[in-house]
Amino acid sequence: MNNPVKEILVIGLGLIGSSIAIASRAKGIVVHGFDINESSINKAIENNIIDKSFSSIEEINNKDLIGKVDLIIVSVSPKNTQDVINNLDILWNSEITITDTSSVKNHLSFKESSNIILSHPIAGSDRSGVEAGTEGLFIGKKNVICNPFDADQFHVDRLKDFWTHALQMRVSEMSVKEHDILFAVTSHLPHLISYALIDSIRLSATDVDDNAGAGLKEFIRLSGSNPKMWSEIFELNGMNIIKSLAGMQISINNLLELITKNKEIPSMFSHSEMLKNELEEIKNYKEDKF
Amino acid sequence: MNNPVKEILVIGLGLIGSSIAIASRAKGIVVHGFDINESSINKAIENNIIDKSFSSIEEINNKDLIGKVDLIIVSVSPKNTQDVINNLDILWNSEITITDTSSVKNHLSFKESSNIILSHPIAGSDRSGVEAGTEGLFIGKKNVICNPFDADQFHVDRLKDFWTHALQMRVSEMSVKEHDILFAVTSHLPHLISYALIDSIRLSATDVDDNAGAGLKEFIRLSGSNPKMWSEIFELNGMNIIKSLAGMQISINNLLELITKNKEIPSMFSHSEMLKNELEEIKNYKEDKF
Repeated sequence: MNNPVKEILVIGLGLIGSSIAIASRAKGIVVHGFDINESSINKAIENNIIDKSFSSIEEINNKDLIGKVDLIIVSVSPKNTQDVINNLDILWNSEITITDTSSVKNHLSFKESSNIILSHPIAGSDRSGVEAGTEGLFIGKKNVICNPFDADQFHVDRLKDFWTHALQMRVSEMSVKEHDILFAVTSHLPHLISYALIDSIRLSATDVDDNAGAGLKEFIRLSGSNPKMWSEIFELNGMNIIKSLAGMQISINNLLELITKNKEIPSMFSHSEMLKNELEEIKNYKEDKF
Repeated sequence: MNNPVKEILVIGLGLIGSSIAIASRAKGIVVHGFDINESSINKAIENNIIDKSFSSIEEINNKDLIGKVDLIIVSVSPKNTQDVINNLDILWNSEITITDTSSVKNHLSFKESSNIILSHPIAGSDRSGVEAGTEGLFIGKKNVICNPFDADQFHVDRLKDFWTHALQMRVSEMSVKEHDILFAVTSHLPHLISYALIDSIRLSATDVDDNAGAGLKEFIRLSGSNPKMWSEIFELNGMNIIKSLAGMQISINNLLELITKNKEIPSMFSHSEMLKNELEEIKNYKEDKF
């Protein structure tokens, strides 16, 4: 890479933003940070998560930043992503690459911008906030980038280089439509189901106490994820999630029929060996490469 | 304990049986083993999982065993549990304590037995078979025992002592009815949902590739559990599971209403903090005690 990222600005120092900051600093990249919550900035400085801070979006949205910062990563909630990038309009079409980390993409629209590319680093935790940031959160994980606004190849290449080499992620590219359908199935529906399962346990007033098996524990962990962020995701990707849920209801009904007729679960229900192999590959990749 | 278990027989050397055998041997208990599958016995001997083996249930079902073995653990599939214990009838009402490890209990019925107590060690894995056995599988985990046949206190005390001290588990007691309702919610429904989710992904022909987030990975892991065992569980505890599922459908519909009306997920959906605290307690217990 002729022009790698040397200095970045992370806007939003939650789990994702602060993890990006920590991993970048560990690679020698200078990290500026900003968060709407002043106490998050102070914690980030205290804990050496960022080198320097900004005090407002207005201070950031200034031509002085051009030539100084190579990449701005907007790591705020899906709904706020649109507003924050709108408020960086002075930096649109500049040498600075601008990206986001939202889990939904279809609501994002930036006209006449040559430097905005969308990113979705596939990593998370039931923990949130600046204290939850960890250096290794992204290592070996996937990062899906979308280029719906036809950004310059220079920015696409630099962004891919950053995610691949600084953050040690595996980058793939797809359309916004593909992205939102895929993650409705692989991420949003599992979270929705977890919320529903845990809610139904609460409503049934079953005293789970500490009788949760490993399966339920994972559902509990998922349902403990940031509810504000997830309500935005459910809203913004609602149609795709509802379609996936409709498909799942068919599978539930098929299973119910098997149960009520005392039939054996056919071998198709153990097809997940195939998917397990994929997971093994991810694990191997992680162990091999880093 | 005046009369602790010194010698046991494990019938069924799958994940659970072989893990019990390994953990018991590590505590100096002599372990006899039997499995309907001769190659499992051979592997158990090769890998030093058991000290001695039996060649048939007929060989086991003999008065000679009395005074030699203190405890027989029948660790076969839920349906086979009834048959295997029926075939040990010569040992009923003897000094030998007899127990099982089935995840469902309502189908088990042994009349006029003073030495049969039911156990359910709450541990599992998506792996199965004698090779999957691990010494630490049960440490700090719950073991629910049921005493529906009114076994002698001598046997109850000895069994509790075994699970608590040899296997380092936390024992609680409940009725068969309570057990089957509780585990429909905390274990069986989460597994059924996982099968349905993974099945619906397969049916929708979505190319998940390696874009699975941590949530989906856990569903994949659960749905990879032994399908034969799970089809038996779904059948034997069908009514309780269907009731739990009905409750969950209400929660799904509530969530759908929130999504379609673009409402925020109310704070009740983050109530799982409470359950997370329970999990923290288990973890602390594990770290403190062992």
